[in-house]
Amino acid sequence: MTAAPHAPRSSRSPGAPVRGGVPEHGRMPKYYAAKAQLVELLAELGEGGALPTERELAERYGVARETLRLALRELLLEGRLRRRGRGTVVAGPKIEQPLSLSSYTEGVRRQGRLPGRSLIGLERFAAEREVAEELDLAVGAQVWHLERVLLADDERVGLESTYAPVELFPRLDDDFDPASSFYGYARAAAGLTSGGARERIETVLATPREALLIGTPPALPMLLLHRRSWDGSGRAFERVRTLYRGDRFSFTAELGASG
Amino acid sequence: MTAAPHAPRSSRSPGAPVRGGVPEHGRMPKYYAAKAQLVELLAELGEGGALPTERELAERYGVARETLRLALRELLLEGRLRRRGRGTVVAGPKIEQPLSLSSYTEGVRRQGRLPGRSLIGLERFAAEREVAEELDLAVGAQVWHLERVLLADDERVGLESTYAPVELFPRLDDDFDPASSFYGYARAAAGLTSGGARERIETVLATPREALLIGTPPALPMLLLHRRSWDGSGRAFERVRTLYRGDRFSFTAELGASG
Repeated sequence: MTAAPHAPRSSRSPGAPVRGGVPEHGRMPKYYAAKAQLVELLAELGEGGALPTERELAERYGVARETLRLALRELLLEGRLRRRGRGTVVAGPKIEQPLSLSSYTEGVRRQGRLPGRSLIGLERFAAEREVAEELDLAVGAQVWHLERVLLADDERVGLESTYAPVELFPRLDDDFDPASSFYGYARAAAGLTSGGARERIETVLATPREALLIGTPPALPMLLLHRRSWDGSGRAFERVRTLYRGDRFSFTAELGASG
Repeated sequence: MTAAPHAPRSSRSPGAPVRGGVPEHGRMPKYYAAKAQLVELLAELGEGGALPTERELAERYGVARETLRLALRELLLEGRLRRRGRGTVVAGPKIEQPLSLSSYTEGVRRQGRLPGRSLIGLERFAAEREVAEELDLAVGAQVWHLERVLLADDERVGLESTYAPVELFPRLDDDFDPASSFYGYARAAAGLTSGGARERIETVLATPREALLIGTPPALPMLLLHRRSWDGSGRAFERVRTLYRGDRFSFTAELGASG
C-alpha cells in the first residue's frame, strides 16, 4: 500500500452505496485519505482482527500521528473499530433493534447476543408538569422512576429511564425483577392489555453522567428513543427514554402499504 | 446569575426527563456547568432569540472563552442553537419525520415548512453486487443513481441517493421532475403498486463531500436512513439512502398492538 492519498474505492464506482465521500473539487483532507485506507485494511482483517500500532499505521500511510488519530477516532465513533484492552480491533456489525413493541431483550437475543439490565435506581416522586402530562396524571401524582443500564454480552450499550404511575404499579418496589422487561411486568403483574405506543428517535450527545454510566467517550453520538405506551383503553402507563450507543445500534421498521 | 458552577435545574428534580447529566460523584466538567446555564438562558430567550457574544457569556459565567466554546459547540451539534449570519440564535424544534411510506415532502409540509429538492446528479451505471442484490437484479444490469439535496425553507437539511432499475423506469432522464417525489413518480409514471418497505436508521458522521453538499460542519452527527421498497408483487423498485442533519430531524413511529 503506497502513502499517496487516493480516493476510497467506492468513489471510482458510482454504484457504490457511499459515493466516496470526497468533494467534487477533488481536495481530500489527509485524515480522510488515511481513513479510506484504514477502511480497506479493516475489510482485510475481518471482525475481531487486531489493528497494528498507531506508529506503524502512520508510517505505512505516510501521515502524522495526529492525522492518523483523527481517522481512527471517526472509525471508533462510527462503530467500525472498538477498543479492546490496550489495543484496537475491527468491530462487528451494529445490533439491529426492531421498532416494535417487542422488548429490548428479544431484539438483542435475535442477534445472538445475551441481553441484560443492571439497576441504577428505583425511586418515587411527585410528577412535575411534563411527566404528568405524558402519563395522563395530575401534577403532583406519584410516579416511579426506574433507571437501568442495558447490557449485551456484558457490554454496557445503553441507559433506560422508565416513568410509570404508582397507582397502576403500587408494588413495583416489591415484586419487580429489575433485570426483566417492565413492559412484560405491566402485562403480567398489573394485567394491562397493550394498546399502542408512539416512538421518536433522534441523535444526541451523551451527557457526562450518561457517558460515565455507559462507559463511552463523552462526545459519542447516541440514539435517543422516546416512547409513550398506552393500554387497550387508551390510558398511558409508561414513558420511556432510552439512550443507545450510536456505534452499536441501528433501528429497523417494516412498513406495509395498501396498493 | 453567579459564576459558581451549579447542577442544571433538572438534576435537583428526579422527575425531569433528562436527569441532570451530572455524574453522581458530583464533579461536573466546567464546560457542562456553562452548558447548563446556557440551557436556562435559551429558555428565557425563546426561539429565534439572539445570544450575547462569546466574550460577554464567558464573563457572565466566569469561564474561559475556550470552555464556553465547548458548551456552545455541543448546543450547536444538538440543534439547540443555530448560526445566523455572524451571530448565534436559539433554534426551533427538530423536524419530526414520520417513518412511513409518505414522502419527505409530506413530512416537512406537515411541520409548516416548505419542502424542496435540488438535483446533484442523475446517471446510469452497471450494478455491482450489493446494489444488484438489493434491487433483485443481475450484476451488471443498468441502474439509475439519482442524487438530490433535501431542502426545508431553502435550508439544506439532507442528501438523498436513490437507486432504481433502468428497465422499470426507462425514461427517468426524460420525464422525471427532479424536484418531485421519486416514490410518486414510480406510482404515476411507471404504474407500480406499492407493496411495502424496510427502513433502517443509524447515526453516522458526514463525510467531507456530504458535509460540503449539505453545508454542515464535518463532524456533525447525521441520521442515515436506508430504505428498500417493493411493489405489490414483491419486486424491489428502489433503494434509497438518505442522510438527514441530526440537529434538524427526528423520526417518529406509531406502533399498534393486539391486546
